[in-house]
Amino acid sequence: MTRTIVASATKEIIIGFDQPFCVIGERINPTGRKKLAAEMVAGNFDTVKSDALAQVAAGATMLDINAGVTAVDPNETEPPLLVKTLEMVQELVDVPLSIDSSVTAAIEAGLQVAKGRPLVNSVTGEEEKLEAILPLIKKYNVPVVAISNDETGISEDPDVRFEVAKKIVERAADFGIKPEDIVVDPLVMPIGAMGTAGDQVFKLVRRLREELKVNTTCGLSNISFGLPHRHGINAAFIPMVIGAGMTSAIMNPCRPQEMEAVHGANVLNGTDANCQNWIMNYRDHKPAAPGAPAADVAPAATGGRRRGGRAARTSA
Amino acid sequence: MTRTIVASATKEIIIGFDQPFCVIGERINPTGRKKLAAEMVAGNFDTVKSDALAQVAAGATMLDINAGVTAVDPNETEPPLLVKTLEMVQELVDVPLSIDSSVTAAIEAGLQVAKGRPLVNSVTGEEEKLEAILPLIKKYNVPVVAISNDETGISEDPDVRFEVAKKIVERAADFGIKPEDIVVDPLVMPIGAMGTAGDQVFKLVRRLREELKVNTTCGLSNISFGLPHRHGINAAFIPMVIGAGMTSAIMNPCRPQEMEAVHGANVLNGTDANCQNWIMNYRDHKPAAPGAPAADVAPAATGGRRRGGRAARTSA
Repeated sequence: MTRTIVASATKEIIIGFDQPFCVIGERINPTGRKKLAAEMVAGNFDTVKSDALAQVAAGATMLDINAGVTAVDPNETEPPLLVKTLEMVQELVDVPLSIDSSVTAAIEAGLQVAKGRPLVNSVTGEEEKLEAILPLIKKYNVPVVAISNDETGISEDPDVRFEVAKKIVERAADFGIKPEDIVVDPLVMPIGAMGTAGDQVFKLVRRLREELKVNTTCGLSNISFGLPHRHGINAAFIPMVIGAGMTSAIMNPCRPQEMEAVHGANVLNGTDANCQNWIMNYRDHKPAAPGAPAADVAPAATGGRRRGGRAARTSA
Repeated sequence: MTRTIVASATKEIIIGFDQPFCVIGERINPTGRKKLAAEMVAGNFDTVKSDALAQVAAGATMLDINAGVTAVDPNETEPPLLVKTLEMVQELVDVPLSIDSSVTAAIEAGLQVAKGRPLVNSVTGEEEKLEAILPLIKKYNVPVVAISNDETGISEDPDVRFEVAKKIVERAADFGIKPEDIVVDPLVMPIGAMGTAGDQVFKLVRRLREELKVNTTCGLSNISFGLPHRHGINAAFIPMVIGAGMTSAIMNPCRPQEMEAVHGANVLNGTDANCQNWIMNYRDHKPAAPGAPAADVAPAATGGRRRGGRAARTSA
């Protein structure tokens, strides 16, 4: 049984086929969030802090930390900013963190300060990336997200994406890194643009699980890009992809409809023992009056036993 | 490719692995609905009519029709009541119907009046049932729901339930009935009472599809029996069981959260071409303000291209 272990200073989480789905909170990422980027550059971490607390309170299993603000020289600016953000967040909440950067120097700087056993996000099948990142993964003995694209870009052919993933796993093995420390992202295409995107990812996840024995992850909301009522598509995708064997996703845990789908899928695949987490989250759920609005605003789930924020705990 | 064909006088529906999920509306059933039972006995079909229209407007692919009111002699009372109900409903809406009774005489009476190609619900693996129902299925050339229990009851062992299903398919073959006219109900247990209920049904559905090549159905809401916020569990179960290969379910189409899961799963398994039905149903979806209530009251989906009610059409 493949078990990917991630940890903060005080909390260990297992990503695995027999474990509740690992929700990696995506919010602390200035990409496409101009206001957050400006704040971070100015040394203001208020939004980072409130996003960290909100995501953990909403049930995030771990948090992705990205400090990729646009800069003239990211090799210069990103490492110290990522370090500061990581330190800030690990001071505030006790869930494991994912160090998210396309800048190798930033990843290494992050690895030097992150407590426990962080996840590195990410390596790809590109030679340059493999040579830069895999030695760090070995040196710091941490797991890594492996994105199944390479120098040729992202293939629309799922068999090619499988081969890229396989190559990364094999190259990692050459460095002495075990498959259980590789979390493959098979790349999710928007279903609105490619009608076979769902089938592709379900089949890929099954193959990755059965043939490469690896855990998997994805940028979840890609699937619904361009469609109306994206939360509804995301919420249907989550149980389907969990049923296919996916074990984690980078997603927004502050979306109640999506988190409800995660909690429901955990019940249904037997990873929520005695439905304990479901009952804790929804025992007081009141169906709304007919005609009341929208499926994407179910009462906020507290995350039950996954709750990990120190600040959140004081108010629990 | 297994294709189960059902039809009303004017409308043909295919149940199949490459088809949108077939939603069999469960509402016209006096079991557990005392008021409806009393009305039907008194010859008042107002609720039957409004339930027929509402279910079709909500997107039901077909409607289950049950007239099993408690009676001293069901063999006497049920056939004429079922006939009257079927005639009433097929006059009102144009979706195919499912003739639902445990009384053989009622099923035969229903088969004599139902137009098109109705589904018969159901036969079991019990000898007496097989001998009574299969000749009718052959005679009227209609498909039948095969429930995987027998004289020994419902086995908790999914392998036993598979064997019962296999026996029914084989016995049907002896009567010259093809597997494509058998829609197996593998029996869904409540996940709150049996933690493996989800895994059981997912595995069973895959085996039924791959080994027996049959379509499948289930009483969907059984899965959430006894748990809080059942709609949430149902809505997670739908994409998972569709992902496993289930092709229809007997369910309440007037529940927007469940129907949203059906529409979403159809998008994701590629049976909603170009997301046309999804876009039609949700293009005007407005996310509600944070803090607004409940996930089970999404705006009513109109059922898009599945819309089949004559009355509903006049207002479309």
